Amino acid sequence: MPENTSESLLVVSAHAGDFVWRAGGAIALAASRGERATVVCLSYGERGESAKAWREGKQLDEIKALRRSEAEAAADVLGADIRFLDAGDYPLIESRQLTDQLVHIYRETRPTVVLTHTLVDPYNGDHPAAARMALNARILAQAVGYDAPGQPLGAPPVFSFEPHQSEMSEFRPDVLLDITEVFELKRKAMRCLGAQQHMWTYYEDLADRRGVQLKRNAGPNLGLPHETKAEAFVRHYPHVTDRLS
Amino acid sequence: MPENTSESLLVVSAHAGDFVWRAGGAIALAASRGERATVVCLSYGERGESAKAWREGKQLDEIKALRRSEAEAAADVLGADIRFLDAGDYPLIESRQLTDQLVHIYRETRPTVVLTHTLVDPYNGDHPAAARMALNARILAQAVGYDAPGQPLGAPPVFSFEPHQSEMSEFRPDVLLDITEVFELKRKAMRCLGAQQHMWTYYEDLADRRGVQLKRNAGPNLGLPHETKAEAFVRHYPHVTDRLS
Amino acid sequence: MPENTSESLLVVSAHAGDFVWRAGGAIALAASRGERATVVCLSYGERGESAKAWREGKQLDEIKALRRSEAEAAADVLGADIRFLDAGDYPLIESRQLTDQLVHIYRETRPTVVLTHTLVDPYNGDHPAAARMALNARILAQAVGYDAPGQPLGAPPVFSFEPHQSEMSEFRPDVLLDITEVFELKRKAMRCLGAQQHMWTYYEDLADRRGVQLKRNAGPNLGLPHETKAEAFVRHYPHVTDRLS
Amino acid sequence: MPENTSESLLVVSAHAGDFVWRAGGAIALAASRGERATVVCLSYGERGESAKAWREGKQLDEIKALRRSEAEAAADVLGADIRFLDAGDYPLIESRQLTDQLVHIYRETRPTVVLTHTLVDPYNGDHPAAARMALNARILAQAVGYDAPGQPLGAPPVFSFEPHQSEMSEFRPDVLLDITEVFELKRKAMRCLGAQQHMWTYYEDLADRRGVQLKRNAGPNLGLPHETKAEAFVRHYPHVTDRLS
Amino acid sequence: MPENTSESLLVVSAHAGDFVWRAGGAIALAASRGERATVVCLSYGERGESAKAWREGKQLDEIKALRRSEAEAAADVLGADIRFLDAGDYPLIESRQLTDQLVHIYRETRPTVVLTHTLVDPYNGDHPAAARMALNARILAQAVGYDAPGQPLGAPPVFSFEPHQSEMSEFRPDVLLDITEVFELKRKAMRCLGAQQHMWTYYEDLADRRGVQLKRNAGPNLGLPHETKAEAFVRHYPHVTDRLS
Amino acid sequence: MPENTSESLLVVSAHAGDFVWRAGGAIALAASRGERATVVCLSYGERGESAKAWREGKQLDEIKALRRSEAEAAADVLGADIRFLDAGDYPLIESRQLTDQLVHIYRETRPTVVLTHTLVDPYNGDHPAAARMALNARILAQAVGYDAPGQPLGAPPVFSFEPHQSEMSEFRPDVLLDITEVFELKRKAMRCLGAQQHMWTYYEDLADRRGVQLKRNAGPNLGLPHETKAEAFVRHYPHVTDRLS
Repeated sequence: MPENTSESLLVVSAHAGDFVWRAGGAIALAASRGERATVVCLSYGERGESAKAWREGKQLDEIKALRRSEAEAAADVLGADIRFLDAGDYPLIESRQLTDQLVHIYRETRPTVVLTHTLVDPYNGDHPAAARMALNARILAQAVGYDAPGQPLGAPPVFSFEPHQSEMSEFRPDVLLDITEVFELKRKAMRCLGAQQHMWTYYEDLADRRGVQLKRNAGPNLGLPHETKAEAFVRHYPHVTDRLS
Repeated sequence: MPENTSESLLVVSAHAGDFVWRAGGAIALAASRGERATVVCLSYGERGESAKAWREGKQLDEIKALRRSEAEAAADVLGADIRFLDAGDYPLIESRQLTDQLVHIYRETRPTVVLTHTLVDPYNGDHPAAARMALNARILAQAVGYDAPGQPLGAPPVFSFEPHQSEMSEFRPDVLLDITEVFELKRKAMRCLGAQQHMWTYYEDLADRRGVQLKRNAGPNLGLPHETKAEAFVRHYPHVTDRLS
Repeated sequence: MPENTSESLLVVSAHAGDFVWRAGGAIALAASRGERATVVCLSYGERGESAKAWREGKQLDEIKALRRSEAEAAADVLGADIRFLDAGDYPLIESRQLTDQLVHIYRETRPTVVLTHTLVDPYNGDHPAAARMALNARILAQAVGYDAPGQPLGAPPVFSFEPHQSEMSEFRPDVLLDITEVFELKRKAMRCLGAQQHMWTYYEDLADRRGVQLKRNAGPNLGLPHETKAEAFVRHYPHVTDRLS
Repeated sequence: MPENTSESLLVVSAHAGDFVWRAGGAIALAASRGERATVVCLSYGERGESAKAWREGKQLDEIKALRRSEAEAAADVLGADIRFLDAGDYPLIESRQLTDQLVHIYRETRPTVVLTHTLVDPYNGDHPAAARMALNARILAQAVGYDAPGQPLGAPPVFSFEPHQSEMSEFRPDVLLDITEVFELKRKAMRCLGAQQHMWTYYEDLADRRGVQLKRNAGPNLGLPHETKAEAFVRHYPHVTDRLS
Repeated sequence: MPENTSESLLVVSAHAGDFVWRAGGAIALAASRGERATVVCLSYGERGESAKAWREGKQLDEIKALRRSEAEAAADVLGADIRFLDAGDYPLIESRQLTDQLVHIYRETRPTVVLTHTLVDPYNGDHPAAARMALNARILAQAVGYDAPGQPLGAPPVFSFEPHQSEMSEFRPDVLLDITEVFELKRKAMRCLGAQQHMWTYYEDLADRRGVQLKRNAGPNLGLPHETKAEAFVRHYPHVTDRLS
Repeated sequence: MPENTSESLLVVSAHAGDFVWRAGGAIALAASRGERATVVCLSYGERGESAKAWREGKQLDEIKALRRSEAEAAADVLGADIRFLDAGDYPLIESRQLTDQLVHIYRETRPTVVLTHTLVDPYNGDHPAAARMALNARILAQAVGYDAPGQPLGAPPVFSFEPHQSEMSEFRPDVLLDITEVFELKRKAMRCLGAQQHMWTYYEDLADRRGVQLKRNAGPNLGLPHETKAEAFVRHYPHVTDRLS
């Protein structure tokens, strides 16, 4: 796998599992092209997304360790580096300090593409909080006057990945990403997340549905395979291009 | 210029001049890559966008002939075929017959990209009428059961080009297209439109402003030239891709 | 009452009563300043807004005559000219011919302010149809090339007056008009509309409520009287002014 | 099955199959309670939703007959009466005459609940056209002055059923209807529609997903079965009730 | 009055009076059915909604005591328990601690229906702050991992009650609740609030207007009494039901 | 220049330059009528809007002093008082203390018109933070019970001035202000801001474009000069008036 040093993907995830369900395909695709991919988990999802472990009577520290090791395994399958900021969840509190940590990561990893949550999610307050910090930190990292190591950031595009309840979160797909060629990696990464087994099938099915939608929007003439898999995203800034397509 | 037979651009324009001001760069870019580009003018803009000619005392037939020859010259500069459906303007009336004519053109030209007006324009009712027909005809052309020659259409992406008053027309750019390399062609094409001289400078300046915005959204690190020129568009359907960028 | 020949108010009303309930104060205010006020009733509201008369067993022609005489009396009280286009209601059908009649009226009356319905009303399809025609006709009347007598129109501001169910019609007031000084005229005009007696009290109370809202938005310091009466409107185009207030 | 003569469900469907995929559960539920259910198919979907038949070389009349018999079979399974207005599809043209036919049906069937399409669907122009006519006809049927047999209609609630691409059609579910107890009937009715076999699995899966969402919104404490099936709807008018729930 | 132990209503009110004006009918209805009703006042409204007392020269502690006793009397009339968190108003500051107090109350009272403010109110910043905390706390209370006594909460529906200026607060009624049978209790409860006498008539009139709207949306055939009283609400989550109505 | 003691303009600006680019004309107009104008800069824009100075190697204190002196010079040209709260930028943190400072200023300056940023700006998080505080402080200043010197504030109208990227910030102009007569003052004030020279031409051109739009919305008949200059604003509350225009 040749390294593509000019491209760098940064994924800001509220909890330890989000990046797998919602953007695992995008991460694996980037990694498969030799690009650097970095996942930042603001929390382990230890309180809000570990119901199974709590019901089994596990303690907080155990749960955090469990979610961490699961997420590390998943990131490894996808080909991404992963970092944990351990900021606590449910609620994940938006703060200047946590935003500053993100600025440092932006300046260090110099992403050319950023993925994060939606700004609306009536079922989970941590997701919008993570998205707000990811967006604010990107702006701060662009300022030469912001006091953090490294050069000012450029203007990488930002995409929201798909929330669990799309319509209720005002998620209208702008981009359908063909992840067919890396889907087995995503499936394998999802299977690393034993704490949320009920999600495995759900997100495999979602990949099919978004794949059908991709084919519907690409048109029948492109000869896409029956088993096309896709992930959906929403853009935060205009798409800069030299070709309409 | 090598011909690229697999790509075909279709532009549905309410009046004879719209395609030049709003999408001249996109057309010239496509043509410069050897792609087929077809402009359909639903009317000549003889009543609503020819105020100068009316004030000079010209008659309806003269004005239509004038606008036609200007538009032909501009299309020629840009490298596009042009057709005139002469459906009348101010008001341009949405009709089944005119929509059917568009279906036939879709089936014949088999566009891989479609450009048209916005669905909202509080300053000009013809523009949304043209957009509605362009969108409906595309759907009809996709149906194998629709009675028109040719094979059913695929699902080409549709973009709205920029209206004259963007904010009032709820135009929030989704795509910024770099037209720097073909801008001299667009400038030359605009100068073919003598009936609307007051627009020349306006749209040259707009290309600069959209160019600045493009650079702002691309980031400083890409080394884009100072004089970047751009056109802005809004997508109607999700972008299908295998790479986030 | 001195005549103010430079100002002209045009009210486009779907039915014979709408202009009284929703804009009677604005009309009386304009007339009280010596300005010309013209009401155009596209229909008599003979089918959709004359339930009482139908229940009393009246015939279509009787009802139309009744609504016409009521509306004439109300317009007279308010100080407005009134015209009836008798285009039929329930449904009021949007047509090129009716729009053309409106263009001729715009060119003749040369309004400096236009009032009409909202573009959304889930309880009455005639109201949005009237609004669409009023807005389109205004644009057509501006074109020197449109074939109708008179000079091209300027760009008079357009306001939607208040629909019966404001929230459901997406009516968020932009303008609160103080009609205190002419409210007795509005009350008297409303009492001319015997076919819709159940509305009298409703619109008197609404004037109070909008008056309270006006005072709330003007601030307590202006010393407005306790019995301030108001009407609410929504602007369609930006307010042009040389003073923020 | 006892007859419940006070309740009557009316479903306005653009094409012959829509009512099954999108509202089959709601129809079967109503019928299972002994309520009258009437489906009106404005067209057979002969051009726009019969691709398989066209590809097999069938003729227009054959296809219409085929779709009609399939829809009749499905309606029979669900327990609904069905009528075909044969207004043509692709495009389904909004007209005064077709709207008037709907008014007559409203006056005759006196629905207490109405189901139809969404007002937005960027993939199918017939669906919004059907919705607009269903909504307008309901308003007209309420007017004592509208010239059609029967008494004026009350104010039955109207729901949009789910479009094929929910997010793109701005469909944010307001109501999740538990159709578990009648799901086998819906499944059987779907299987009557041989012309659209590719939809069978899709809509079985959708019932599961909406069922999961129903349970998520009902809360875990209600003890809903694992295999809950649901359909999603959007309300057009406020819900009138004497109990919040 | 039989006790209905399975139902529990929780009302989160920014100030001491809000729950009476905006949801007094809903509270009295629930209590009249034997359901538990609990009101939580985050503040006494001592600064922002006690202008009369300040103008009379009262001191902060006096005003808080006054508002408390008024609210207790009103809650008693309506049949609700009431609690005061005394978090301060104008501004009411959103905080983790206050949200945590709400989580504890959710876990204890186990509401089956939740009422709170709108998320938008350009005239009062405390109202959206209260709504955000009420919504976030409900999500946190659902998590088994959240450290608070009691079992995880189910998913009770949440409704916004009506703000003082509905259109400006983007309040489009989703639900009209018939409160006719308990309206005398609401009237009596309102009269307990001597600090805000100017509101008494306003909210009596609003109950009438919402009652008229309820009848308009229920249809004339239901035989509702002339004096129907109603309150309006907006749902935050889809309505889960087994019957469309 | 006669003093107009009854009118007072308050401008809440996140950084030291914003008030000049976006509202310099409105300020100069007010001052030219003898009205009091006060600018509050929440920060100097020392980190986020001083890239040139940072690139030249200046230190933080130098940059703050530089921006302050530039802003003082510009305010002096426009005829406004200016205050600096030095709250820090990038990020400007919303806080109770800073909001309280603004309440004191509202109570002291008693504005009759307020100008601030938009509530949405995806390119700059400080701007919405400033707008939120300006709006909240205005509400707090209205409460007699708020503990700050001076009388409770009335209800001055609030306008958002134009953000740098209007469409992306959901800025749809409500008001176009004719600043032709004071434009030379605005130009001169802009030239005081040496740290942001690249903005000079941009905002001179914007004044032209908004001027063209003003003329388009005023109509050709008003005889406005060719070189009309304008600024655009969005209202937060309904316009209170006794005359539609």
